[in-house]
Amino acid sequence: MLTGDMLIGTTWVRGGDGGFRAIDPARGHEIDPEFGHGTDAEVDAAASLAADAFDEYRATSPVERAEFLDAIAARIDAASDAIVARAHLESRLPVARLEGERARTTGQLRLFASLLRGGTASGVRVDPAQPHRSPQPRLDIRQRLVPVGPVAVFGSSNFPLAFSNAGGDTAAALAAGCPVVVKVHGAHPGTAMLVSVAVRDAVIECGMPEGVYSALIGRGTAVGAALVAHPAITAVGFTGSRSGGLALVDIARRRPVPIPVFAEMSSINPVFVLPSRATAEVAREYVASLTLGAGQFCTNPGIVFAPRGDAGDAFVAAVGEAVAATSGQTMLTPAICDAFRSGVDALEGAGVDVIGRGAPGDGPNAPRPVVFGADAARLDDEVLRSEIFGAASLVVRYDDTADLAAHAERLEGQLTATIQAGDDEHDAVRSLLPVLERKVGRILYNGWPTGVEVGHAMVHGGPYPATSDARFTSVGSLAIARFQRPVAYQNLPDDLLPPPVKDANPWQQVRLVDGAIEGLVR
Amino acid sequence: MLTGDMLIGTTWVRGGDGGFRAIDPARGHEIDPEFGHGTDAEVDAAASLAADAFDEYRATSPVERAEFLDAIAARIDAASDAIVARAHLESRLPVARLEGERARTTGQLRLFASLLRGGTASGVRVDPAQPHRSPQPRLDIRQRLVPVGPVAVFGSSNFPLAFSNAGGDTAAALAAGCPVVVKVHGAHPGTAMLVSVAVRDAVIECGMPEGVYSALIGRGTAVGAALVAHPAITAVGFTGSRSGGLALVDIARRRPVPIPVFAEMSSINPVFVLPSRATAEVAREYVASLTLGAGQFCTNPGIVFAPRGDAGDAFVAAVGEAVAATSGQTMLTPAICDAFRSGVDALEGAGVDVIGRGAPGDGPNAPRPVVFGADAARLDDEVLRSEIFGAASLVVRYDDTADLAAHAERLEGQLTATIQAGDDEHDAVRSLLPVLERKVGRILYNGWPTGVEVGHAMVHGGPYPATSDARFTSVGSLAIARFQRPVAYQNLPDDLLPPPVKDANPWQQVRLVDGAIEGLVR
Repeated sequence: MLTGDMLIGTTWVRGGDGGFRAIDPARGHEIDPEFGHGTDAEVDAAASLAADAFDEYRATSPVERAEFLDAIAARIDAASDAIVARAHLESRLPVARLEGERARTTGQLRLFASLLRGGTASGVRVDPAQPHRSPQPRLDIRQRLVPVGPVAVFGSSNFPLAFSNAGGDTAAALAAGCPVVVKVHGAHPGTAMLVSVAVRDAVIECGMPEGVYSALIGRGTAVGAALVAHPAITAVGFTGSRSGGLALVDIARRRPVPIPVFAEMSSINPVFVLPSRATAEVAREYVASLTLGAGQFCTNPGIVFAPRGDAGDAFVAAVGEAVAATSGQTMLTPAICDAFRSGVDALEGAGVDVIGRGAPGDGPNAPRPVVFGADAARLDDEVLRSEIFGAASLVVRYDDTADLAAHAERLEGQLTATIQAGDDEHDAVRSLLPVLERKVGRILYNGWPTGVEVGHAMVHGGPYPATSDARFTSVGSLAIARFQRPVAYQNLPDDLLPPPVKDANPWQQVRLVDGAIEGLVR
Repeated sequence: MLTGDMLIGTTWVRGGDGGFRAIDPARGHEIDPEFGHGTDAEVDAAASLAADAFDEYRATSPVERAEFLDAIAARIDAASDAIVARAHLESRLPVARLEGERARTTGQLRLFASLLRGGTASGVRVDPAQPHRSPQPRLDIRQRLVPVGPVAVFGSSNFPLAFSNAGGDTAAALAAGCPVVVKVHGAHPGTAMLVSVAVRDAVIECGMPEGVYSALIGRGTAVGAALVAHPAITAVGFTGSRSGGLALVDIARRRPVPIPVFAEMSSINPVFVLPSRATAEVAREYVASLTLGAGQFCTNPGIVFAPRGDAGDAFVAAVGEAVAATSGQTMLTPAICDAFRSGVDALEGAGVDVIGRGAPGDGPNAPRPVVFGADAARLDDEVLRSEIFGAASLVVRYDDTADLAAHAERLEGQLTATIQAGDDEHDAVRSLLPVLERKVGRILYNGWPTGVEVGHAMVHGGPYPATSDARFTSVGSLAIARFQRPVAYQNLPDDLLPPPVKDANPWQQVRLVDGAIEGLVR
């Protein structure tokens, strides 16, 4: 089944620019089969096919697109064993984690299907004509959201399923009515191919136009760069490093017609532990969140503010004990492991304390988890505020809860901030909350930022540099908004109006009529 | 009353960087008083005051902000005679037009007030906890939209009221909860000051924090550039030329923390006249739309597709007659008039035909309206597709309605496209509509694009280069979305949640609960 081809429309194509094999990061060995690297020719073929498919695909009804998303989910679920086995081989993420990620991936697809069935995703607004208005009559004006066009999606390293070929970006774009061209992540080409098989089957089963989905393989950054620069591409979804995201932003804005890049880039996800929560239990929860999945989460708790004094000292001691009881897990790729080691070295070189270190894991790419410590006064040093992707974190000691807002002000934009507080500490929390609302996309209370719920209310986004556009989320149903834009229709006869804005409302869309939601009883 | 000062918070400040006077474009003479140019010091003072005001201002309830917007509108209406008289002197726009623009401006403020009272603007989403969900419980997650922070608004040349100090961008930003720092347009500093008096009075009357509104005056582009680069500014609203808009986009993206610029830039607003509508009446309507307000509208019909053959010839002849019966009106500034003349010269130099010319108007800055003609085959020449701001337009002759979609494909992104068609031409329209939906923000039928209705369904936006961000509108209530971003709250105790997402819903916001609108009966 794994031929090493890439998918252009419904055709499997062998890339001609040399070959490569995936690496088993546990052993550093190559895994069969060989995959062929694509070139600009395949980029152009896939993007052009996506452009050709766009008008037909976007004319499908929300229910038809929901059925398509459900069909993709069903095909992935049916192939779960093979997909998870291959993903395990390519990523060495634990099988149970990958089972969960597969469920999350198909859950995401089904969430967007339910969104489409719910009738709120077309953003329909109707301002009816007022022929007798003075001094001038008002003409009938209607608005709906249309899909922006073909979307480039970059597979991520750390979510071979949930943020890769049929992951959140793809689900959101397809739900919006946008064809998708995926740039496969080089760390898991086999997983990508198995998922592409499932998507291709769903395309055929649902009679969707060829070109609604393609998946490109390419050497280094060339194919991805060519994809973002291609005139047919209208938006980009990316989850990865800050340097990678900013490189795509730069390509996108130099185009003759600039396009938006939704890059989810970097975050150290501050945790503010107030004195009553500086306990051994919270310390253990922290280390569990930090080391989950070898710490390879965008929402990994990279910096924890703990109080000075006895309780804080006990908390730090418990953190040290907990981390000492851990051992390294194999990281996703040798390069990611190297970057982790460099980041740890840089932080250590900045003269911070070592609170605790775990044992090394098996194999070449399973480094020791580590927690460092420093005084809050040292936060001016940029190294202390930089993300280390993996199981490394910094405990910062603060003098007074009244200082926490000022410490938070010194941080860059983040995906999340977490508050650990007791019932009698709400006043301190109240002074911190307004700062966090300006700095982050999600605020958590007495929990941990890893494990992002996929729902309607989730925000996985945040001010720069956490993402390249804080007005959007890449997880949850609002993620569809990245790939839509409004169009107004003024004075069009009903038979020329698209279905969502026709008088009879044949697609049963929720409508804002003269600014009020039709049918709403309050 | 007109002292020549700028407004920083509630304090009138005299700019120290030399002075200037507004120009009466009808005579080219200076008008008293002298205004003082500001410097970086005033930019920093206003932006810092806006940042200081932000936390207090954004904590106001939607109803409090609605009352503030209503108070601004009431103060502007009360000062209407003085404002309109000064605007007439500075712009030479007709008094009746300025009366209408004043009504539009206060109507806009009241539209946003009604939006805030309607409870849909906070984007509240609630996914309640599911403690018994398997395999993992779901935590309570709530989402709302928060304001992004202080917004820089650039006064426009062509709408001294509706797109200037208290215009659409300011109304949308204040409605969202964002303080505003206006860069006053140099063509109408007196009008700007009178409007600032009204806003300042409303700030004081409503007890809003000082810094929620400032209005800066500055020489050339320096003050505007410093404002966009200021760390306290988080978004920019601009209506003007493509070069001006792109310059701001460039400054904004080079910042350490890039910010979005919502620039409404250029559009030639194609009109597709199908054969049955190639009549003398439509020709007269076209020339009326073209010459309205000296053609100084973003939505001015700059290119009209008319059929070949007898009906088309008669249409063109009627256009020629109609335009010959017009005469020039004074343009907004001598520089705008010069740019108009250069644009006309460039188009004429490209070897197009002259269909008709009006008479010159009175004074130095009232050039002759003109309509040119060319064959559709010539559209490859960029000069023929470039905007000329003013009463100049191009009629392009086409062979067959079946070719219109291909002609439309060759155009850049536009604010509007207009279809003039009869009942038996709907099939031809159907083939054109999908192209237009990809190219423009608003599609009109048997009407004219000038005269933009301000309502909930309006879209005044469109793909690049019509605007810098096609996902948003700068007119209508959806314009508020430019200045909001989502924040999620996970597992917060009710007493720590902000009012819009509290269980009791004290601000009576419309809420999406588990993806469905609460209270909606379908």
